[in-house]
Amino acid sequence: MSDDSQVDAQPHCCASWRHGEPTDTDISIQHNQPASSKRESANDLTDVRARISEAVRTVKATTPLAQSFTNFVTINLVANAQLAAGGTAAMSFLPDDVIDTASIAGADYINVGTLLPFYKDALPQIARAFHKAAHPWVLDPVAAGIGATRTEILRSFRAAPPTIVRGNASEIIALATMWGLRDDTVQSTDSTDSTNCATTRPAGVESVDDVDSATVAARQLARFLATSTPHKQAAVAVSGEIDLVTDGERTYRLPGGSAMMTKITGAGCSLGGVTATYLAVSKPLIAALSASLLFNRAGEIAEQQSNGTGTFQPHFLDALWNLTPEQVADSPIIVTQ
Amino acid sequence: MSDDSQVDAQPHCCASWRHGEPTDTDISIQHNQPASSKRESANDLTDVRARISEAVRTVKATTPLAQSFTNFVTINLVANAQLAAGGTAAMSFLPDDVIDTASIAGADYINVGTLLPFYKDALPQIARAFHKAAHPWVLDPVAAGIGATRTEILRSFRAAPPTIVRGNASEIIALATMWGLRDDTVQSTDSTDSTNCATTRPAGVESVDDVDSATVAARQLARFLATSTPHKQAAVAVSGEIDLVTDGERTYRLPGGSAMMTKITGAGCSLGGVTATYLAVSKPLIAALSASLLFNRAGEIAEQQSNGTGTFQPHFLDALWNLTPEQVADSPIIVTQ
Amino acid sequence: MSDDSQVDAQPHCCASWRHGEPTDTDISIQHNQPASSKRESANDLTDVRARISEAVRTVKATTPLAQSFTNFVTINLVANAQLAAGGTAAMSFLPDDVIDTASIAGADYINVGTLLPFYKDALPQIARAFHKAAHPWVLDPVAAGIGATRTEILRSFRAAPPTIVRGNASEIIALATMWGLRDDTVQSTDSTDSTNCATTRPAGVESVDDVDSATVAARQLARFLATSTPHKQAAVAVSGEIDLVTDGERTYRLPGGSAMMTKITGAGCSLGGVTATYLAVSKPLIAALSASLLFNRAGEIAEQQSNGTGTFQPHFLDALWNLTPEQVADSPIIVTQ
Repeated sequence: MSDDSQVDAQPHCCASWRHGEPTDTDISIQHNQPASSKRESANDLTDVRARISEAVRTVKATTPLAQSFTNFVTINLVANAQLAAGGTAAMSFLPDDVIDTASIAGADYINVGTLLPFYKDALPQIARAFHKAAHPWVLDPVAAGIGATRTEILRSFRAAPPTIVRGNASEIIALATMWGLRDDTVQSTDSTDSTNCATTRPAGVESVDDVDSATVAARQLARFLATSTPHKQAAVAVSGEIDLVTDGERTYRLPGGSAMMTKITGAGCSLGGVTATYLAVSKPLIAALSASLLFNRAGEIAEQQSNGTGTFQPHFLDALWNLTPEQVADSPIIVTQ
Repeated sequence: MSDDSQVDAQPHCCASWRHGEPTDTDISIQHNQPASSKRESANDLTDVRARISEAVRTVKATTPLAQSFTNFVTINLVANAQLAAGGTAAMSFLPDDVIDTASIAGADYINVGTLLPFYKDALPQIARAFHKAAHPWVLDPVAAGIGATRTEILRSFRAAPPTIVRGNASEIIALATMWGLRDDTVQSTDSTDSTNCATTRPAGVESVDDVDSATVAARQLARFLATSTPHKQAAVAVSGEIDLVTDGERTYRLPGGSAMMTKITGAGCSLGGVTATYLAVSKPLIAALSASLLFNRAGEIAEQQSNGTGTFQPHFLDALWNLTPEQVADSPIIVTQ
Repeated sequence: MSDDSQVDAQPHCCASWRHGEPTDTDISIQHNQPASSKRESANDLTDVRARISEAVRTVKATTPLAQSFTNFVTINLVANAQLAAGGTAAMSFLPDDVIDTASIAGADYINVGTLLPFYKDALPQIARAFHKAAHPWVLDPVAAGIGATRTEILRSFRAAPPTIVRGNASEIIALATMWGLRDDTVQSTDSTDSTNCATTRPAGVESVDDVDSATVAARQLARFLATSTPHKQAAVAVSGEIDLVTDGERTYRLPGGSAMMTKITGAGCSLGGVTATYLAVSKPLIAALSASLLFNRAGEIAEQQSNGTGTFQPHFLDALWNLTPEQVADSPIIVTQ
């Protein structure tokens, strides 16, 4: 599952993070910008943290329903993570069921991990219904670039796009490429990019690209979503060594987390599900930031409390359940240009 | 999943329960009835407790097989809960597979949580085969009232009904309504009832009605099942603040449990599965009571041992595994008129 | 699931194992053979242990991808077990997805536990593609003998056979029988065998035969696979009281494990998945031995650390994660003729 998307270099990131540098890193990097933008980004970040705290608090207070159409491998963890974050969960696969339930859900989550034959028609139909109803939803383009059916389904979403896309670097690059958003903007920093999905296909469901290489694709994708979605607001979250979240204009990097999150299946899928839970009560950018920060903090706590990958998962869910809005909002956030 | 059915006011229930009142509550309420029925219900309850103890003991001693056709979200927990209670599990979806396996299973469990297109024909076919073979089965009408396909499937079960129905208040009311059992019996205590499923549809998969409001529907449903099922015996279990179990004649309320059971996905689904495990060795009423009491006691133990929703589940399964027949049978049971 | 395959008499085995006899048992039985073969088997075993150690070490060092087409009950545990052993996981069901991903996977795992209608065509198509590409794969013939569709699918694999078959005694006997490998070789030790699957059908998904009774069938099956698979090497693993692994020529028995492995769902399924992980880096016989030994050691550790079936699973995964190549390779192995 795309949970493996966070393998990458997270160990390094986590190592430095655990070595007590986060606050320094946060502060230093937070101000390591052109003087002209210092105050602006500082004010911006203060406002962002306030809205993240409000989102986390609101979910715990109002238990919003987020519906998921997700893969069979991690569907249980997605539901339990949404419940642990304070929301409620409903999982469905039949279009009539999904569309009927969406009317009482604050947001939806679609994950294309384990496909069945009928999804080829069902998913495009569901995406069109969401688009027509201006219903917010999160897409996890698991293994984008692998399989003709998956590619056909992902291509179809271009006409009825999600509000948020969460994936690993390779998936974000592959999706932006198959949607034709990359042609005239390939940059040197985007070394792995190509119009040939084959070169950016994930190694199975693991990213073969690092987050930096997906920065341009993530911004292009976010800007496309922002202009194409009913609410004209969107976000893209890239999981990896240092998670990236952007709305197309502002880009944030989120250090921390745990390499153990890459050794259980479902960290990425459940992050997508919880992102939908926050999207039910907040704007796309805040929802993506809140979920990623919550997961990174929970991963660090679970790694300290567990003795392996088996005990990591229950401790991870306990941490999702116990973390406070302040603990999430006060996380290190790196503002980039 | 319908596991969320127990959210309701369980916290209050559990709070008072945990405040050491259960025994008092049990005794006082147990005798808080018209004088004329005191001895009768006391004798009845003594016999019921003896049969519950026997059911729990027999499952641990004979590891009966109960087959499940259940949703993808909690299918693993359903199987593990059945194994923890002492039974064995087999999960199947193909009619030929289900019907073939049913011949060596003591009972079956059908949960309509996550539907796939072929279920529309498969589930009615399976129900008819069970009816023809007088094979006992438990139905969990998850999210009854949501989705045209689910409604069509649930309506079809009226002609080949289950032995036991376990659901939340809204699901029980919705099923009794779509089976046309409510028309001439709407009562003031049943304020939320309506022939329009829309008004009793669960909020996603959570109940929007309390258990009391489903009392009449539960009894009507149980009486219908008792007259329609091959063995002429049936039961209905309603999960909520204070669980309700009835065979249509006698109605029991079961205080206790844990609000944490509503914060993991699958408490309700696995309760349905374990009810089928007990149905393989006992009568419907005893099977429904045994499973509900086992789950409430396990929930209380797990809540004390866990630090959140993640560690709650393994401790909950440990409790299902470790609870004795006496601990289950000696649980507080409220006999109502 | 076939995880229940290990119920059988494991308790007895584990009892003696936990009573400190393993080393003695190992040594004594290891040499309890015709004088002529003593040195040979001792040398053979020394080489086998070296290759097991190398396989376990290589997986941890190279995180090979093994793809699974497996049942919905234990799919999450299969993925987490593969990750805990050090590999990476990808689960797929659509032929185009499976065949595309197989090109970047070291081996595949197919488990026929919970069938859907389209598997009837998809699984034979996938097996043919694997055969044509000489792609190694592991088959878990869950509940072989139950259901017309399952039987049709399993029969079809005869023309495009797996590299390794892992199952319980009844499943191995049923598969060898439906492939017509038993006709002229029925032996007295194989008392339960019959050309009528009905008599060897698993009780649901549990074995109704013991491992000894499947010895002949396992060897016949392994020899057939070795002559029919592209690489001309194969293995068969039978889970039970004392696991059996054979390549058709040499047969090994692996004492130990934990009866608790039969009280959670997925021990057998995840063993099949991890066998595929090792098959991605080693020969069939070594892959089957490595996975079975790793699981038996992990089961013993988890049983000591857990307080029931709920806490057993996380401790079991922790043990898979923490066991060293030496701990696995130094396990007791009984060489039989």
